[in-house]
Amino acid sequence: MVDIATRVWNHKWKIDPIVRSLIDTDFYKLLMCQSVFRNKPDTQVTFSLINRSKHIRLADLVDEGELREQLDHIRSLSLSRGESTWMRGNTFYGKRQMFSPEFMDWFENMKLPPYHLEKRDGQYELTFEGSWPEVMLWEIPALATLMELRGRAVLGDMGRFELQVLYARAMTKLWEKVEQLRDVPDLRLADFGTRRRHSYLWQDWCVQAMLEGLGDKFIGTSNCRIAMHRDIEAIGTNAHELPMVYSALADNDADLQQAPYDVLSDWHAEHEGNLRIILPDTYGTAGFLKHAPDWLAGWTGIRIDSGDPAEGAETAIRWWKSRGEDPRDKLVIFSDGLDVDKIVSLQAQFAGRVRVSFGWGTMLTNDFKGLVKDDALAPFSLVCKAISANGRPTVKLSDNPNKAMGPADEIERYKRVFGVGDQVAREVVV
Amino acid sequence: MVDIATRVWNHKWKIDPIVRSLIDTDFYKLLMCQSVFRNKPDTQVTFSLINRSKHIRLADLVDEGELREQLDHIRSLSLSRGESTWMRGNTFYGKRQMFSPEFMDWFENMKLPPYHLEKRDGQYELTFEGSWPEVMLWEIPALATLMELRGRAVLGDMGRFELQVLYARAMTKLWEKVEQLRDVPDLRLADFGTRRRHSYLWQDWCVQAMLEGLGDKFIGTSNCRIAMHRDIEAIGTNAHELPMVYSALADNDADLQQAPYDVLSDWHAEHEGNLRIILPDTYGTAGFLKHAPDWLAGWTGIRIDSGDPAEGAETAIRWWKSRGEDPRDKLVIFSDGLDVDKIVSLQAQFAGRVRVSFGWGTMLTNDFKGLVKDDALAPFSLVCKAISANGRPTVKLSDNPNKAMGPADEIERYKRVFGVGDQVAREVVV
Repeated sequence: MVDIATRVWNHKWKIDPIVRSLIDTDFYKLLMCQSVFRNKPDTQVTFSLINRSKHIRLADLVDEGELREQLDHIRSLSLSRGESTWMRGNTFYGKRQMFSPEFMDWFENMKLPPYHLEKRDGQYELTFEGSWPEVMLWEIPALATLMELRGRAVLGDMGRFELQVLYARAMTKLWEKVEQLRDVPDLRLADFGTRRRHSYLWQDWCVQAMLEGLGDKFIGTSNCRIAMHRDIEAIGTNAHELPMVYSALADNDADLQQAPYDVLSDWHAEHEGNLRIILPDTYGTAGFLKHAPDWLAGWTGIRIDSGDPAEGAETAIRWWKSRGEDPRDKLVIFSDGLDVDKIVSLQAQFAGRVRVSFGWGTMLTNDFKGLVKDDALAPFSLVCKAISANGRPTVKLSDNPNKAMGPADEIERYKRVFGVGDQVAREVVV
Repeated sequence: MVDIATRVWNHKWKIDPIVRSLIDTDFYKLLMCQSVFRNKPDTQVTFSLINRSKHIRLADLVDEGELREQLDHIRSLSLSRGESTWMRGNTFYGKRQMFSPEFMDWFENMKLPPYHLEKRDGQYELTFEGSWPEVMLWEIPALATLMELRGRAVLGDMGRFELQVLYARAMTKLWEKVEQLRDVPDLRLADFGTRRRHSYLWQDWCVQAMLEGLGDKFIGTSNCRIAMHRDIEAIGTNAHELPMVYSALADNDADLQQAPYDVLSDWHAEHEGNLRIILPDTYGTAGFLKHAPDWLAGWTGIRIDSGDPAEGAETAIRWWKSRGEDPRDKLVIFSDGLDVDKIVSLQAQFAGRVRVSFGWGTMLTNDFKGLVKDDALAPFSLVCKAISANGRPTVKLSDNPNKAMGPADEIERYKRVFGVGDQVAREVVV
């Protein structure tokens, strides 16, 4: 039977929104936002979209009007009562009241600041300026919007059955991954795929497929809206933007060298247990660990987000041992460029030696590779980063020179200050 | 938005019926029914279900209560007003009023006769007795019911996402076939898959996929309900049951030898053009063609339904030439054990030499091979045949001894009467 009201509603709805809620974002953005709200609320930052896959000419593929419509819609969003209740009342990482009443009061009244959009050389220049706690919340919605609009541009030309078969193929592909992962003993896997997902509905499908297919091996999702709706754990800790902005704010080389540890010192004061996860690669993992204060060795774990992941984990294990810690008590979270084969081999290599978990992103929520002509839906590498703080440029080095960003002279300065030597370049696919 | 009325309706509906309508059947059953109604209305027949795939223990797989519920539901069906209007008013094979007012009056008031159901050796003995025009209409619904109940028994144990992925895989599989067939020049293909379909909804999906994917190359479906709902051609001519019953009614060997031609003589009086299709293999193609009267050579075409299909077509071509007919004016319909590779090779071999078309059955509407554990959804060979007429056993030989049926002594008698020599046995898969 046709539900006439629903049909009519569908017609009058001006757009089918890509981002439906302010909590359709990664959990760690909210955790970091609260930290920034507490510790650096007045910092002025600029975030910018950066397409690392230059061959994807986004401005040729995505209509500017549609993009503006989606971004305007995101700016119209505010926290709903139910979302606020969930954030205030839910248990995150075993803790109640993770978000303070002061932060929630502010977040409930927050709307995202304006955006600046221009086309240049077949790409969109999309930037956001303003106070850090507000601007930082643009990252995930902006990325998800561009990723999905690029997909919609391709899907728009397809027939009804072609479309159905496309999703049939994508479902089959994902389910085959789930079936492979199901057999991996002691696996612990989370969805980290919000930013580069094919679409919200598809991410939601992927999460439900993992819930059914992996059972306890699926530990949760980084997406707060999906975590809330599916009643599962929201997962995430912190990201490069904290050391990047803290470092940009440093007035001299000595302060700069200290900045990444200041980030974790603030974090230490706020969080405990499984939220105490080191992200060591912003300015090179080796140097970061070498100069780290002893209290950091007491943290729960480390997240490996660039460079060779096995090498990163081995480095961490050596470091823990050198600081008198037992690696078997420590958690290693792999979150860079994962797909089934890599998950299986990393689990085999490190299970029993450390506690292992995986944050699976793009190849979970956007593996449409090879499914349409010209591979027009293959995922690509889009990021949205803090590029300046209080007027100073930010820098990221990471353990892969292909992921480095910032002005060339500043990159050289950071390399010198952090003692980063030769690095092995690795292809950045997603 | 939830359509509450639909939800409540779904709950109160006692069963989800497998067969929804008396015209959820093959078009040729209705054509043959009308012919029988005209020519042999008082013949008493018995039809019986025969599972040629003995390793599929249907009675162990399918619950008897569910089977009875479905069969009872089918007995409750009668022709709806819209269906009657379609049959009376639609153009079939270019002809209006294909079904006479007398036949329609009878059909509108017809309900299917009782069934007899017993379990034996892990199989169901399911038989139907009564007047031929009524009993014959059980064939397709009975087959579709058993096929689908066997599938449902497997599907019942699957999770929600497993189910979705199962259909995703089946859709992908079918669409890959459509994509291969799309490139075959001058292809003419019809759906003949009602009897061994996975389900009505799946058959309907397959038909729509072919409509979108093959365009003009898809010429219609044998399923009347789908033809009506999708506004496409209903396809079909006649089947083995006519010569089988006519032959059983023959009083002596001379009459027996003549019986298959009597069938076509009656058909000749009723139909013209593309409905004049010879089905020559009931008692061996070679002998049938050799002894055929000359007027049969003037018929439009031939349907190849057993034996090696290329050999059958070559035999027909030689026969037409021997009777002074130009094979290029003739239609060869392949309808036995087809899948993409065979369709492609037969088209390549015969295009230009004859007019070619294909009636694609089981591997169109039930190719779930390899999609679940233990291949529990692989199609199998189930038929429902006239086994006696006015108390005398029927016999079928066909061009494949593995498809022969009837009492052994009668098979020998028929082989003698029709001069059938050695035959090559071919595996019967579906």
